[in-house]
Amino acid sequence: MIDRYEEAIQGALRQGLNRDGSFVYDMLRYYMGWADETGAPIHATTGKAVRPTLCLFGCEAVGGVASHAMPAAVALEFIHNFSLVHDDIQDEDATRRGRKTIWAVWGKRKALAAGNVLRVVADASLQGLIEAGVDSERALAGVSLLTEAYLEMIEGQYLDMSFEGRHDIGMDDYRRMISRKTGALLRCSLNLGAAVGTEDPATVSAFRECGRALGYVFQIRDDVLGVWGEEEVTGKPVGADIRRKKNSYPVVCAMESAEDEDGDAISRIYGKRELEDRDVDSVLDIMDRAGVRERASVEAGEWADLAMQALTPVEMSADAKREIEDFIHFLMVRDR
Amino acid sequence: MIDRYEEAIQGALRQGLNRDGSFVYDMLRYYMGWADETGAPIHATTGKAVRPTLCLFGCEAVGGVASHAMPAAVALEFIHNFSLVHDDIQDEDATRRGRKTIWAVWGKRKALAAGNVLRVVADASLQGLIEAGVDSERALAGVSLLTEAYLEMIEGQYLDMSFEGRHDIGMDDYRRMISRKTGALLRCSLNLGAAVGTEDPATVSAFRECGRALGYVFQIRDDVLGVWGEEEVTGKPVGADIRRKKNSYPVVCAMESAEDEDGDAISRIYGKRELEDRDVDSVLDIMDRAGVRERASVEAGEWADLAMQALTPVEMSADAKREIEDFIHFLMVRDR
Repeated sequence: MIDRYEEAIQGALRQGLNRDGSFVYDMLRYYMGWADETGAPIHATTGKAVRPTLCLFGCEAVGGVASHAMPAAVALEFIHNFSLVHDDIQDEDATRRGRKTIWAVWGKRKALAAGNVLRVVADASLQGLIEAGVDSERALAGVSLLTEAYLEMIEGQYLDMSFEGRHDIGMDDYRRMISRKTGALLRCSLNLGAAVGTEDPATVSAFRECGRALGYVFQIRDDVLGVWGEEEVTGKPVGADIRRKKNSYPVVCAMESAEDEDGDAISRIYGKRELEDRDVDSVLDIMDRAGVRERASVEAGEWADLAMQALTPVEMSADAKREIEDFIHFLMVRDR
Repeated sequence: MIDRYEEAIQGALRQGLNRDGSFVYDMLRYYMGWADETGAPIHATTGKAVRPTLCLFGCEAVGGVASHAMPAAVALEFIHNFSLVHDDIQDEDATRRGRKTIWAVWGKRKALAAGNVLRVVADASLQGLIEAGVDSERALAGVSLLTEAYLEMIEGQYLDMSFEGRHDIGMDDYRRMISRKTGALLRCSLNLGAAVGTEDPATVSAFRECGRALGYVFQIRDDVLGVWGEEEVTGKPVGADIRRKKNSYPVVCAMESAEDEDGDAISRIYGKRELEDRDVDSVLDIMDRAGVRERASVEAGEWADLAMQALTPVEMSADAKREIEDFIHFLMVRDR
């Protein structure tokens, strides 16, 4: 599914950022992996384009024409990258995908503006739905869907920030936060694609429901990789998210399911200003004892099942069903 | 004109931010001047609401119903305030309108997210055009207009940043920068209002042209106030923009029109890391000798004339003509 759409998506993304008149577009092409710091074209690894892929799939699976949904697909990927540009600034992350982040190269002020430009390029892309053959009403509905998802996404980011430094975050808080921070845009990807492809509200909401469940699958895996991912694949050392004291799945799950003593130990460690190697190791040990990886795997599996069940009432080809099933499986086991 | 729309605009703005579920909305209500730092309602001075006023006026002047344009008016004011929230972060400005800025109270990370929330609340407002009685096609055209203006606005902000530290900025560079940074949204205000009120393309473009000229009137006055404004009114000390080495109208004009010796002196002073009081005084003296205030006044007057001329072919009531004339005059002489 990823391979099938890859070329068309990459072409459309480049087309979307094919603007002149300001160095800011060179900065953005750099971030997308298409140019070096001077603006010269390079051949770097590009992202997985999960969101645009889901969007085009959703459109085709309900009988629509994939190219009609392309402006929405492009908008989703740009919105996602916009949020990464601002995340990098907020978290002071100097590298992503093995390359320096925008603020690390050009400073925070320009990075902030560059992120805002990418956000509006996304809007401009979405408005291309009309030219792609979508009628005004459906195009406006698409604009509303993305706005709604995007608002939830930032509210989720804000919630995530407000959790920092707190030791009383439970799994329900965590789920509420990721369903917004990550889930909203993934849900929107399938939702938007389906809404471009069909007018049947039951079908559209089945895809929306599927996308909602997918968001959990995606983020739980992300959080597992943030702790146990292999450095050469994810670009982060093992335990990275522990060292940064992130309230991600593994630690929230450990706090909730560990023995009292272990729970206290994590609170104590997360209360320190900076964590040393042995602190990270202690937390990793506690996570092992609490069976956090297995719990994560079970929960991701449950969400994956719900995602597939959501599509049960939808009439789609056996090929399409298999494709989305494979894709969900890929999200669960991916190593980057 | 400002008084006539004020109550309706303030009500609609509050309605637009009347959202729950996250403290981020309290932060935004604080910024708008409606709440204190704890979220409790207060009665502070609100902004001039120049953009929404122009938008509603544009709609009514061409025979439309002002309430139809209200969602656009609200969107414009929120977009404007969003850009101020991010500007404050970028420039590390700790006060605005005599109150602490969002980042100064809650830190830069939360301020960045709060700005992004306001930006998307603006989008959501604009999508209310349909409910306000505007048809899908016109509503979509409105969304495109705002996107276009907003993109120009950030490109202008970026251009402004890229001018920093340079001593070779001429008046043409300056005009190109402000026509985007400030002009785009002001142009869009009249343009959007007129586009909601009428389908006649010649009328809409006359308002667009008027708005374009207004942008210069507005920004030239802003820049004059940034140097010579009275502290108790603007909240900034005299010479503030010189001390910050801003490439605003007065200094660019002085560099271009001053005698060689004076021009070199400004370059030398702007090349220093930090400016002392006597540096600021020297630059003020040079500006006096070069007649910068008079030049600014003449140029603003020329743009004001162009703004009125743009509306000559438009059939509107004598009252409306007088109102917009008064408003343009107000923009030229305002002291805050």
